[in-house]
Amino acid sequence: MENKPFLTTRSLQPENQESPIHFLSSWLTPDKYFYRRNHFSYPVLTSKHLWLQINGNISQPRFFHLYEMLSLPVKSLILPLECAGNKRAHFHPKVYGEQWEDGAISQGKWTGVPLFYLLEQTGFSKNTKEIVFEGADFGRKPNKDNMIPYRRSLPLEKALHPDTIIAYQYNNKSLDYKHGYPFRLIVPNWYGMASVKWLNKIEIIDHSFEGPFQTEDYVYYPHKNDDQESYPVTTLHVNSIIQQPLPFTVLNTGIHEIKGIAWTGKGVVTEIEVSLNNGDTWKQAVLERSNDPYAWTKWFLLWHAEKKGEYSIYVRAKDSHGRVQPLQPFWNRMGYGYNAVSKVNVKIE
Amino acid sequence: MENKPFLTTRSLQPENQESPIHFLSSWLTPDKYFYRRNHFSYPVLTSKHLWLQINGNISQPRFFHLYEMLSLPVKSLILPLECAGNKRAHFHPKVYGEQWEDGAISQGKWTGVPLFYLLEQTGFSKNTKEIVFEGADFGRKPNKDNMIPYRRSLPLEKALHPDTIIAYQYNNKSLDYKHGYPFRLIVPNWYGMASVKWLNKIEIIDHSFEGPFQTEDYVYYPHKNDDQESYPVTTLHVNSIIQQPLPFTVLNTGIHEIKGIAWTGKGVVTEIEVSLNNGDTWKQAVLERSNDPYAWTKWFLLWHAEKKGEYSIYVRAKDSHGRVQPLQPFWNRMGYGYNAVSKVNVKIE
Repeated sequence: MENKPFLTTRSLQPENQESPIHFLSSWLTPDKYFYRRNHFSYPVLTSKHLWLQINGNISQPRFFHLYEMLSLPVKSLILPLECAGNKRAHFHPKVYGEQWEDGAISQGKWTGVPLFYLLEQTGFSKNTKEIVFEGADFGRKPNKDNMIPYRRSLPLEKALHPDTIIAYQYNNKSLDYKHGYPFRLIVPNWYGMASVKWLNKIEIIDHSFEGPFQTEDYVYYPHKNDDQESYPVTTLHVNSIIQQPLPFTVLNTGIHEIKGIAWTGKGVVTEIEVSLNNGDTWKQAVLERSNDPYAWTKWFLLWHAEKKGEYSIYVRAKDSHGRVQPLQPFWNRMGYGYNAVSKVNVKIE
Repeated sequence: MENKPFLTTRSLQPENQESPIHFLSSWLTPDKYFYRRNHFSYPVLTSKHLWLQINGNISQPRFFHLYEMLSLPVKSLILPLECAGNKRAHFHPKVYGEQWEDGAISQGKWTGVPLFYLLEQTGFSKNTKEIVFEGADFGRKPNKDNMIPYRRSLPLEKALHPDTIIAYQYNNKSLDYKHGYPFRLIVPNWYGMASVKWLNKIEIIDHSFEGPFQTEDYVYYPHKNDDQESYPVTTLHVNSIIQQPLPFTVLNTGIHEIKGIAWTGKGVVTEIEVSLNNGDTWKQAVLERSNDPYAWTKWFLLWHAEKKGEYSIYVRAKDSHGRVQPLQPFWNRMGYGYNAVSKVNVKIE
């Protein structure tokens, strides 16, 4: 009998559930194990949502029907989406918000139309600054009176990147309803809040977008009591997860596999190091890379545990931009972008 | 669209998964939301497991077939089973073992034959001291060479208690395979390790049983480095869970329901108190009791949160034996019986 993992429920209204990331080994996370992160209730979809609208700073609005999208140039990318709040539960002092542990990340194959192609079709004026993306989901934010849709922008340069796509397929099937059917913006290398689900409207603007999911949430606030030195959440930090062994496991003496995944938003992961002496010395883990440049890297190290006792396993990833997971996390008031050295304690008996 | 919670996966070999206890409100936990706690792989069941064997200190072994059991005197009880390691993750200093949070507890309706009836049928000698219960599951314990079955004993007095039953139904259906089909011993008021699943053999003995699940595991060891003052895990402590609000939630000013469940292994829960000022003053929660004496108690308190700021919600249950949840947990090396005051932090914005 095969035992199956489940999503870990963080909240149900709106639905926020973690992927059982420690128990998955595939490059492609199946739909049902993809983490769910929502700001609002799921939208009620109608046939109008099969039309993607582009308006704003262009001569006239354009509408692309799903069927038309299927006939346009296509691109497939294997990449992880990671919630900016992934690992928030690990911050000390604790921060408020969804207490994500390690599973607010999942990876799969996204297929769709490069956004630059659509933007070229519609044309846009030279003073364009940003592109705004609106989902079909909407609701009230805490202590606000008005209903607002989920809306985020990208700077023009990122929007025009050839790998920024409007996905209509995930793992070779139509997008799952809970993950943005029929259209999801996919922004490689950025935290997941940029990859707008149930994408319905694209607006071309000549100024900076100031929506609350851009200027209030998804901002690093380094200070507890004021907003000084704040800046927006964008690119994924270099990061890793120890999938096995699990925290506070008791193991026999002998050979154990320490394994996991690692990823970054700048370049590629170049090294994974493992320490068994609180960071004094580090050993190189073996890397297993995908051909897909954005995909996470799998890694493992065989550990010959000869001596009984308690051990802390530390793991840190390095990327091709010279970034490395720090020993201490960058604490920020809303708890985004946690990427301190990954740690698991075990006891050898 | 209704969003559904899932079990929380702690490990898969053997399978250990928590109930999504914060998201359940029924008196009866459905099968699929019942926590799963295993010491070994699931047993392969054959027709021989439909026979319950009673042997040992009696004139001759007796076998009861499931069909015969169905014709014997029947008793139904609504009661929770709680893993002795429930809430282990909350101990500081941390302890090794499965990192259960609040969900290693579930409640349902158990139906079966009182054990004393079977023991009376078989007869047993006057020098009987304990009754040993053996499940069909077996395997190796860490750092042991031999395969052993899961086996636990009860003192004769507890075994003869009229509410100690051999259950063959859960929530009016045949026991689920993962929860002990065809027979599960149900020991009211004791931690779940006593309620042996896939019960296959009952042995009547005239001495103290010394199996490792009785004398090594499921023992309170108050000291980190020696076994002094240790004693066995038996009766449930008085305990509670705050189901809502969830930890580190941000709430509006206004009225919020603080709600949860509470239970005990001695008598009944008589009071639930809630403090919003770190235990200086306590308010009485409203109790909702079941007619079933062993069932958990539901409770709630309406909280008018007028002032913005950060709050710790403390909850403590009291039982009819004068026991109360302590502010500090009783730390023990294997992390059993955690029942310190339940706490949830929230922020009012």
